[in-house]
Amino acid sequence: MADPILSVSRRTRSTPYSRRVTAAGVGGYTVYNHMLLPTFFGTIEDDYWNLCNDVQVWDVSCERQIEIAGPDSERLLQLMTPRDISQAVIGQGMYAPLCDEDGGIINDPILIKFADHDWWVSIADSDVRLWARGLARGLGLDVRIREADVWPLAVQGPKAEQLVTRVFGDEVPGIRFFRSKMLEYRGRPMMVMRSGYSKQGGFEIYLNDTSLAEPLWDELFDKGRDLNVRAGGPNLIERIESGLLSYGNDMTYRHNPFECGLDAYIDLDADIESMSLPALRALAGKHEHQLVGLVFDEPVTFDNFTVYADDRAVGDVRSQVWSPRYRRYLAMAMMRRDFLRDHKSVSVDGKLGTIVDLPFDFDAIVGGEKQ
Amino acid sequence: MADPILSVSRRTRSTPYSRRVTAAGVGGYTVYNHMLLPTFFGTIEDDYWNLCNDVQVWDVSCERQIEIAGPDSERLLQLMTPRDISQAVIGQGMYAPLCDEDGGIINDPILIKFADHDWWVSIADSDVRLWARGLARGLGLDVRIREADVWPLAVQGPKAEQLVTRVFGDEVPGIRFFRSKMLEYRGRPMMVMRSGYSKQGGFEIYLNDTSLAEPLWDELFDKGRDLNVRAGGPNLIERIESGLLSYGNDMTYRHNPFECGLDAYIDLDADIESMSLPALRALAGKHEHQLVGLVFDEPVTFDNFTVYADDRAVGDVRSQVWSPRYRRYLAMAMMRRDFLRDHKSVSVDGKLGTIVDLPFDFDAIVGGEKQ
Repeated sequence: MADPILSVSRRTRSTPYSRRVTAAGVGGYTVYNHMLLPTFFGTIEDDYWNLCNDVQVWDVSCERQIEIAGPDSERLLQLMTPRDISQAVIGQGMYAPLCDEDGGIINDPILIKFADHDWWVSIADSDVRLWARGLARGLGLDVRIREADVWPLAVQGPKAEQLVTRVFGDEVPGIRFFRSKMLEYRGRPMMVMRSGYSKQGGFEIYLNDTSLAEPLWDELFDKGRDLNVRAGGPNLIERIESGLLSYGNDMTYRHNPFECGLDAYIDLDADIESMSLPALRALAGKHEHQLVGLVFDEPVTFDNFTVYADDRAVGDVRSQVWSPRYRRYLAMAMMRRDFLRDHKSVSVDGKLGTIVDLPFDFDAIVGGEKQ
Repeated sequence: MADPILSVSRRTRSTPYSRRVTAAGVGGYTVYNHMLLPTFFGTIEDDYWNLCNDVQVWDVSCERQIEIAGPDSERLLQLMTPRDISQAVIGQGMYAPLCDEDGGIINDPILIKFADHDWWVSIADSDVRLWARGLARGLGLDVRIREADVWPLAVQGPKAEQLVTRVFGDEVPGIRFFRSKMLEYRGRPMMVMRSGYSKQGGFEIYLNDTSLAEPLWDELFDKGRDLNVRAGGPNLIERIESGLLSYGNDMTYRHNPFECGLDAYIDLDADIESMSLPALRALAGKHEHQLVGLVFDEPVTFDNFTVYADDRAVGDVRSQVWSPRYRRYLAMAMMRRDFLRDHKSVSVDGKLGTIVDLPFDFDAIVGGEKQ
């Protein structure tokens, strides 16, 4: 039976690049922040090799920018995240889980200090705008919160720097990871950051004039022809191999950052006012689950995501993919910590898998077998 | 080119009915509240006639129930909606826009007073849970807010009452519109309400035990065979013909209830504390846009949703469908009110359309031409 189509409507919002995405032969979408996000163009595997070898242009408009501006903007943002944001530099991106008073993860955005008292929260898939507005209203804070008219376009892959330099000029190579510069495109300054949802390197261009969306797309393809540029999107194979987490998949509001291995982004000892810190301080080291990797030696399919040890349910699979490079089936699973202490193998839908740490250490897993 | 598929993941949450939906041959999905919502099984037109003539079972689990309970639950809900909820009766459903301090629509749920100080907010597609939690935290309210473990299944169509009676018993016909009864299914009490997102009549069963999802689905199909029961979903043709609005399509957070014709659900004169009422009182009669119907005599397709009068942009199309019954192409469009005062026709992507009031009055539109 054919895969179900996505019924597109105004509610599954199109983007300034959608006509080009369609013309490029998009094969699948997901819906992310009520907006279309392309998932593949050729096959996921073809896209993977192109991303790893060459360069791709991704319509990631769905990474909506929630702008929080005004005198109380830092105070509100610090309440929302347990990561200390006091040392942020203008133009810097900062990965920061947002957590509620129970420590549950509301979102895991990149926070960008765009100017003094003007932040962009580059969000994963939940309505952060509503949470921020509710908090601000309830607390009587002096902030302005809106979904900014900004439409990120990612250029990812080993040849991304070369391509973005051809379009945005010689300042591009000097941009460090998670830093940005305001660079002109057709006379209009736009933020260009070294970032993106892959480990193949690249940039995100924060387009702020929809009339320039198609010219920018076209110029990237014109100037990237010899680089084998193609349309792509966040690639399931690449992101799982690279251990990049996906909010809504690998973690939800029912999980806390410790369970997801995000300890490094929680400043437990900081002297800051953050609504989740009391709960997180109490939880640290005592959380019940842990996200781990599972490795299967064969291609598998699951009808049921529950992870078993003998007859006990000990976790569930959150993401999964066949890795053509390592010839292993990889999964991320949220598991009971007490079980992890003295077990190394499990079964999912009758298939035997091995538990490994995240991110995957392929040298240990496959030795010399890499394709 | 084939329609793009939906790439399903854990983030686009499956439901307790998903295996049955797949087995029934679902043809398309949309994603609604981060959850799969089937859009058609045969064709949208085949589904339409089945819905209008017989009976359908819809997996509308994506109508998530946000439970707001505790001593301050009424206070919080009343802050969130400009509709006076003080007279609500236990078991009653109440359509109520939720609006922010500017009057913008956050969601348009059915509020259900489940018990004293225990409300279910049966939501359209936005994260009301985050907004409610933000407000409650900021205001220090004594409430508990959670996404309830409840999975609505709709039974819709002229034979729905007959089918639901066969499964839930003789109390079903006595349930009035937007009222409910707690009825037992295999010994477990569940709320059964006369409601649903069609004008063909029917019920919504608020399943509260996932282990009963497949037995309930199967029993409805077994007992409905002679009624020509089929799997379906909210039907684009039927809902537009019936003038049912869709949040995210016909209205968004950038619109207010007056623009969407929801005046009847705003209690401007009530002595209640509701955060949107000051803004709505100031807006009443002065809103800039109005949702109207557009009728085209031929099947049309639009590459561009902008509504023009001569060379002026005067609105945009939000929803659209071909009506096989009336042989007209129907659209809902958000239009500038000043333009509507003295114009009756427009063009969209070069096609000429006539402006009509909502809901569509087909006697006036097609006279005796109904199929």
